[in-house]
Amino acid sequence: MSKQILVFPGDGIGPEIVAEAVKVLELANEKYQLGFELSYDELGGAAYEKYGTPLADETLARARAADAILLGAVGGPQWDNLDRPLRPEMGLLKIRSQLGLFGNLRPALLYPQLAGASSLKPEIVAGLDILIVRELTGGIYFGSPRESRVLENGERMAFDTLPYSESEIRRIAKVGFDMARLRGKKLCSVDKANVLESSRLWRAVVEEVAKDYPDVELSHMYVDNAAMQLVRAPKQFDVVVTDNMFGDILSDEASMLTGSIGMLPSASLDANNKGMYEPCHGSAPDIAGKGIANPLATILSVSMMLRYSFGQLEAANAIEQAVSNVLDQGLRTGDIWSEGCQKVGTRAMGDAVVAAL
Amino acid sequence: MSKQILVFPGDGIGPEIVAEAVKVLELANEKYQLGFELSYDELGGAAYEKYGTPLADETLARARAADAILLGAVGGPQWDNLDRPLRPEMGLLKIRSQLGLFGNLRPALLYPQLAGASSLKPEIVAGLDILIVRELTGGIYFGSPRESRVLENGERMAFDTLPYSESEIRRIAKVGFDMARLRGKKLCSVDKANVLESSRLWRAVVEEVAKDYPDVELSHMYVDNAAMQLVRAPKQFDVVVTDNMFGDILSDEASMLTGSIGMLPSASLDANNKGMYEPCHGSAPDIAGKGIANPLATILSVSMMLRYSFGQLEAANAIEQAVSNVLDQGLRTGDIWSEGCQKVGTRAMGDAVVAAL
Ligand SMILES: CC(C)[C@H](C(=O)O)[C@@H](O)C(=O)O
Ligand SMILES: CC(C)[C@H](C(=O)O)[C@@H](O)C(=O)O
Repeated sequence: MSKQILVFPGDGIGPEIVAEAVKVLELANEKYQLGFELSYDELGGAAYEKYGTPLADETLARARAADAILLGAVGGPQWDNLDRPLRPEMGLLKIRSQLGLFGNLRPALLYPQLAGASSLKPEIVAGLDILIVRELTGGIYFGSPRESRVLENGERMAFDTLPYSESEIRRIAKVGFDMARLRGKKLCSVDKANVLESSRLWRAVVEEVAKDYPDVELSHMYVDNAAMQLVRAPKQFDVVVTDNMFGDILSDEASMLTGSIGMLPSASLDANNKGMYEPCHGSAPDIAGKGIANPLATILSVSMMLRYSFGQLEAANAIEQAVSNVLDQGLRTGDIWSEGCQKVGTRAMGDAVVAAL
Repeated sequence: MSKQILVFPGDGIGPEIVAEAVKVLELANEKYQLGFELSYDELGGAAYEKYGTPLADETLARARAADAILLGAVGGPQWDNLDRPLRPEMGLLKIRSQLGLFGNLRPALLYPQLAGASSLKPEIVAGLDILIVRELTGGIYFGSPRESRVLENGERMAFDTLPYSESEIRRIAKVGFDMARLRGKKLCSVDKANVLESSRLWRAVVEEVAKDYPDVELSHMYVDNAAMQLVRAPKQFDVVVTDNMFGDILSDEASMLTGSIGMLPSASLDANNKGMYEPCHGSAPDIAGKGIANPLATILSVSMMLRYSFGQLEAANAIEQAVSNVLDQGLRTGDIWSEGCQKVGTRAMGDAVVAAL
């Protein structure tokens, strides 16, 4: 039976980098006989232009029907002044929420070939390999009530709500423990339990889930300390599990430790490992259309798709190996270029990965 | 008329480092005829031991009556299992809130003498001098409702509320702009306006306040991007203003960029510049009582007190100069020690600053 892959090129550099990733996906499809059928639709700003909304109902229905989704990136300055429900990121938040993609995996991996690109000292980051597991469909991103209003004294005020239920925490904690089991067997749960009620429940439920994972070493850390420790000694971490907002902040901080955010993929999974896959970086409107964006994070997102949604480990590994070979050959897009390497554009980089595969 | 300074030695290394800072404060008092009268009380774990609560009513009354407060640090593992209202940090949160200390100034300054201590490359952090202005008495730290409860289906859930009013945002924005005016005239306001209602109001009010500061260059940044940019290129920042929770996270991240959190003081000010002054680092229970803690952050907190609460710029500068001289002499506590320097303990470091003053 064929598998349906829905592709969202998205905004900014999205279409360029997705085009290269699709080449790699199609080659893998053929070579490993994966039986994938690709179709395309729009999300974010591009969807607003086409449908008048950042996520059309028909698009959502197609996304529900698909077996996996590949996304470039969404957003751009031309949509910044739209009303909130029409803005590109609302399409992203809605699809995450409607598809129940609660498990966001964000690796922060330092490629040995790019070790010099980090702003941290080599000895601090050499060999860095962290996985941030971020809760993606709950917490303050989606909590209600949330409102802006005028008080009786004429003053404006606004508020958001940060809620977590036991089952939401339990399922993301399980993802964290499962991932830790496949890796270094260390899980650090990050919260702010000395201040927040939701964090106290978070910590309690993570402790309960831990009973089923005696082989995984669990620690807890406050989010402020985690933000510090990521700078001070990032290699102390293996897997980090945290809530939606803390995960947003810490995963971006962690990815920047590698100095090559153009290399980092991500997966957002539902309870059945159906997933949406996208690069960690954004839509980079300033370089869109110039053919210079780095397609490797999107190509590696394809590899994550094969691994997590389809269990095609051989094909997934082959793509990762091809990327590594291309780096060994000295090919670099501008964002990861350094003295002595050969600077190439988006398409040449994609072609090189295809050739290496 | 004499000025009343209330001193809280606090927990862990607090008493040791405060003892050295008090020596410096008393010398400055004499030398510059500041007319300070010092008195002592307890906050945090030490207060729990003495009064059965981390902030006694009599203590709060004395704090209200004082002209400024010097604090060591609070917290320790022996109080971790107390009920939340009895825990040391609740004393800290309560005194901040009750005294209206909404303006938290957290400098992240790289001392040239300690440049090697950072985990970042020298060219990334050399000359780093950021001031984080954190809102300290509002937001999710104090928002209500906040609750943990059992739902009808038997599941537990918990939630917190993140509220901000126009006046709360306005007053902290003013602090940010005022500080920027005294420094590099650049203010970056950090929020998550693409997701949070409270952040949208935050951004709108900061824009309004900006009209009164045409000489200050204002920018806005999302908190996830700010966490990244602090690692990538921290010197792009001059003053950063942000809410209570984001400020907690980003100020810790920023302070760690310097590699010497044992050097960083902080001030928490009310609307009349009455303030509580404390080091950015914590109570470090693991090294308490050993006489090896670094007292310089607390000594520099005294300097901030003289500057912000009493306008005694000459005395404040003299203390900063004395600290710099002691570093030039090669004296280092263990946390900032490097090859070729002389390792000294808490008391010897304090004495050296006194001698240099
Ligand atoms: C665009 C934005 C809403 C989104 C988020 O905050 O989740 C982005 O920062 C991310 O991390 O994917
Ligand atoms: C101890 C804790 C409640 C406190 C905070 O989160 O404000 C601390 O981390 C700080 O930054 O002063």
